[in-house]
Amino acid sequence: MKQSLTLIPTLREMPSDIEVKSHKMLLRAGFLRQSTSGVYSYLPLAKRVLNKLEKMISEEMERLGAIEITLPSLQPKDILQHSFRFHEKDEEVLQLKDRNERQLILAPSHEEVMTQLMRDEIKSYKKLPITFYQIQSKFRDESRPRYGLLRSKEFLMKAAYSYHATEESLEATYLQMSDVYSSILSRLGLYYEMIDADTRTADGLKAHEFIVASDIGETTIAYSDESNYASNIEITPVVTSYPSSEKPMNPLEKVETPQVKTIEEVCSFFTKEQTDCMKSIVFKVDGEFVVVLVRGDHQINPIKLRNALKAQSLTLATEEEIEQLLGCTIGSIGPIKLPVNVKVIADLAIQSIRNGIAGANEDGYHYINVNPERDFAVNSYEDIRYIQEGDPSPDGNGTIRLKKGIEVGHIRMSGTWLTEKFNANFIDENGQSKPMYMGSFGLGISRLLAVMAEIYQDENGFVWPKQFSPYDIHLIPVNIHDEVQFDLASQLYHILTSYHFDVLFDDRDERAGVKFIDSDLIGLPVRVTIGKRASEGIVEVKIRRTGEIFEWAKEELIDRLNEYFRSH
Amino acid sequence: MKQSLTLIPTLREMPSDIEVKSHKMLLRAGFLRQSTSGVYSYLPLAKRVLNKLEKMISEEMERLGAIEITLPSLQPKDILQHSFRFHEKDEEVLQLKDRNERQLILAPSHEEVMTQLMRDEIKSYKKLPITFYQIQSKFRDESRPRYGLLRSKEFLMKAAYSYHATEESLEATYLQMSDVYSSILSRLGLYYEMIDADTRTADGLKAHEFIVASDIGETTIAYSDESNYASNIEITPVVTSYPSSEKPMNPLEKVETPQVKTIEEVCSFFTKEQTDCMKSIVFKVDGEFVVVLVRGDHQINPIKLRNALKAQSLTLATEEEIEQLLGCTIGSIGPIKLPVNVKVIADLAIQSIRNGIAGANEDGYHYINVNPERDFAVNSYEDIRYIQEGDPSPDGNGTIRLKKGIEVGHIRMSGTWLTEKFNANFIDENGQSKPMYMGSFGLGISRLLAVMAEIYQDENGFVWPKQFSPYDIHLIPVNIHDEVQFDLASQLYHILTSYHFDVLFDDRDERAGVKFIDSDLIGLPVRVTIGKRASEGIVEVKIRRTGEIFEWAKEELIDRLNEYFRSH
Repeated sequence: MKQSLTLIPTLREMPSDIEVKSHKMLLRAGFLRQSTSGVYSYLPLAKRVLNKLEKMISEEMERLGAIEITLPSLQPKDILQHSFRFHEKDEEVLQLKDRNERQLILAPSHEEVMTQLMRDEIKSYKKLPITFYQIQSKFRDESRPRYGLLRSKEFLMKAAYSYHATEESLEATYLQMSDVYSSILSRLGLYYEMIDADTRTADGLKAHEFIVASDIGETTIAYSDESNYASNIEITPVVTSYPSSEKPMNPLEKVETPQVKTIEEVCSFFTKEQTDCMKSIVFKVDGEFVVVLVRGDHQINPIKLRNALKAQSLTLATEEEIEQLLGCTIGSIGPIKLPVNVKVIADLAIQSIRNGIAGANEDGYHYINVNPERDFAVNSYEDIRYIQEGDPSPDGNGTIRLKKGIEVGHIRMSGTWLTEKFNANFIDENGQSKPMYMGSFGLGISRLLAVMAEIYQDENGFVWPKQFSPYDIHLIPVNIHDEVQFDLASQLYHILTSYHFDVLFDDRDERAGVKFIDSDLIGLPVRVTIGKRASEGIVEVKIRRTGEIFEWAKEELIDRLNEYFRSH
Repeated sequence: MKQSLTLIPTLREMPSDIEVKSHKMLLRAGFLRQSTSGVYSYLPLAKRVLNKLEKMISEEMERLGAIEITLPSLQPKDILQHSFRFHEKDEEVLQLKDRNERQLILAPSHEEVMTQLMRDEIKSYKKLPITFYQIQSKFRDESRPRYGLLRSKEFLMKAAYSYHATEESLEATYLQMSDVYSSILSRLGLYYEMIDADTRTADGLKAHEFIVASDIGETTIAYSDESNYASNIEITPVVTSYPSSEKPMNPLEKVETPQVKTIEEVCSFFTKEQTDCMKSIVFKVDGEFVVVLVRGDHQINPIKLRNALKAQSLTLATEEEIEQLLGCTIGSIGPIKLPVNVKVIADLAIQSIRNGIAGANEDGYHYINVNPERDFAVNSYEDIRYIQEGDPSPDGNGTIRLKKGIEVGHIRMSGTWLTEKFNANFIDENGQSKPMYMGSFGLGISRLLAVMAEIYQDENGFVWPKQFSPYDIHLIPVNIHDEVQFDLASQLYHILTSYHFDVLFDDRDERAGVKFIDSDLIGLPVRVTIGKRASEGIVEVKIRRTGEIFEWAKEELIDRLNEYFRSH
């Protein structure tokens, strides 16, 4: 491709409000432009990388026997009613109405549409298992679009859905898919971790996420400092054992605590540790109020809480609701003397607090010498807090550390959770009607582009890996007005192209400096410069990754380039 | 592909409410399913045809030097403000709001986003001309989705946009694109016509549509019965000359005409011809009321009217507005004694009406012996009616006939109309800032699939052309429990696949009759049946298009198939 004929709008100066380096470099090197908040146009170079990613991913899917399909972006809104729990974050779904007031959504996922299709079209075990895939835009109403392609409203995904007659069959595809995802990420040269993840459903059987470690990631990984254990902090179980105290229980006492609201203020007021305090928070769980207790130094994990309570919906109670229920503000909630019908759910750590401190459900007062069971009833103790650094690893080896990562893929054995809701049944070998088993597999393609852009760069620009570079070779005549140089460059352009190299030919009338800066920004694996020694038939070859520079005769160029591109 | 592993849900019975045969057959042969009103899922076979179409179209675009890009589906609504006239049918644009109340639309076109990008990124004549293309879903809020893929809310398009420094350069690309479109449609084996079309803008330079003749088409073509002339009826000029009458003008007379409203009723009441009547219709043109007159046997063409008036917006006046303006109902409007400030625009044919009939702006009355100029003033005479069968062809050769067709593509020289609105300027060789010239080119890919489905079928199913068939060969062992048959079939499956044939291997445990019915429905070019003569190594080969049947030895199969697929 002649550079004069395509659009690569490199930038000398960067807008200062760009937060992450992948986004910065995609803008600077002319790969990407924002179209509107959280929505991007992929310029020609980015499109070429995406095409290569899509091709490779499609090949991997076909190899696994998955069938390509295209499901629509527009979906009827009522399709979500069956899968409410997948979308408790309803505000993330972009909604619209057509001219007939029909309520539509823009597909955040195609699990429901696919399952509906399966229900309608597949009746017999003979057609199972079957796996579909598609590569398509999905949509999400991000509350705060940022980090460029990492949190955008319109993004490109490969999704796959599999349906099975048995759990064993699902498990087999799950393992295959896990291998394929690993293979894809390895081919991209990405270091990833496959971590335990939220199954999101009470009976979801298994789920993993593929995470690339990164400080800008939105996923927190809890991992062991001694073993391979790694898990999404959203579901990591806490196996800490809390020693029960031998101290005697003191008499419960209500103390006036003016202006004392936060845990820090409580501790400083009573000169106590956070471990002596009980944090009380009111949730609305499937329409009923529940007081949830965790220790002062712990944080409630709403996903573990929801799973523990098998809740369909779970939201924080509003200030008004708390005022009406308890007659106090948020900072004064406590577990003692609650209205009947208000359940108390406590984290396991609460059980061993002796003579603790809690809110009094009365602004300006706290109870001290609070002891569970003696002073208030607990409906159940559950593991409902986030694991913390220093907690023992759930696998029994080492202690937990935390780090951030970017989720690039997820695989999930959904089991029969969704198929039951949709009545997606099949007739088995014995004539029995049963719900299909389902697997769900996602891979973020625009996200992979962003992760690669994050990793494959140095201070001068991108450093694309050979297989996924927009072009293979950047061919640059230093001075297009020098006939010898330009002729040799044109000649090499034709030869290289005929050998099936993808060549970007910088035929622009620009200063050499500009061309080299652009070339480094774009970051193709090999730069071939035709300069002063053109008359001798000598060209300069620079390897972008290593910075190595060679002078090769034009006659040996093809062989040497073939060798370079064949090697790893 | 083994048929047991993919999804081809053929139907024995059809829902009775399906109107057109392409849609019927796409459903029956298991290519398509409706997801919600006007929105479809492409099942695996349809996806394979689409992939082949996309690949061919991409190749044609690349050959022309167009650069692939991906522009987003989500667009800010305010982007339309500059191109109002492209979207006077605002209700066809699907709109939504994000959680920050930002108004968004789902792309009906990418002309505006692309032009905005050009304005921001291209400054110099050195970067022109440049042509981009993309293949992507577009959205339209169809008032009445029907005919399956032909009028759907979400559809697949190839769009291309070109930008130029001069009109000559635009013209050159326009001609190239016109050739490429012709070549694409020819490769698909479609008979099409390239007709003059609405440029939609006052200074749009030229536009053509590619139409495939079909009774279910929404486009009406006006063509000459003697020459090559063909044009979209929306813009076909009327060149009829209306002889002026020699008859004397009779005195104007107001006649009571109870219950007489339609043109037919008027004619029968007065025993006159429709050619003696004046139809009066009130439009609201850019906020002002205009009375538009055409002869009783003619129909107003709103696009010609809008263009003649250079109107930004043009709508019919409502009943209330007419009542308020004239004090009568729709059937009684006339051009005589109108309020001041209400303009009268008349079709050219009105000029030669002598002693005609018109409404009296008073319910229950008409005027007779109405003569233009004597009885009412006309602000201008314009060519504002639809051409009719029997009118002379505008090219001077023959008379006009009408037929219906499906628009599959359009090409348009937009000139500087849109680029001026977006200030998409460049600096020319002399340092002058000028608006770019723009071309816009669309090709409906899902529409092409529908058109092919309409044409390539017989009473038993599809008859796909070789190049765009979902697979090349349908390989069918009659009885999979017959070991000799199944072994030979499996062996041939591997051999054919290794020779790069796309093979659909019917490995299902179904009766032969079911398999053959399905095979005819799916309509691959060649069926290879392995039946009773398997033990002799003889297979039956049926050519779907001609119905020819051959018995070939397995040893000669590859050579003969190669020969068949190489031939035209």
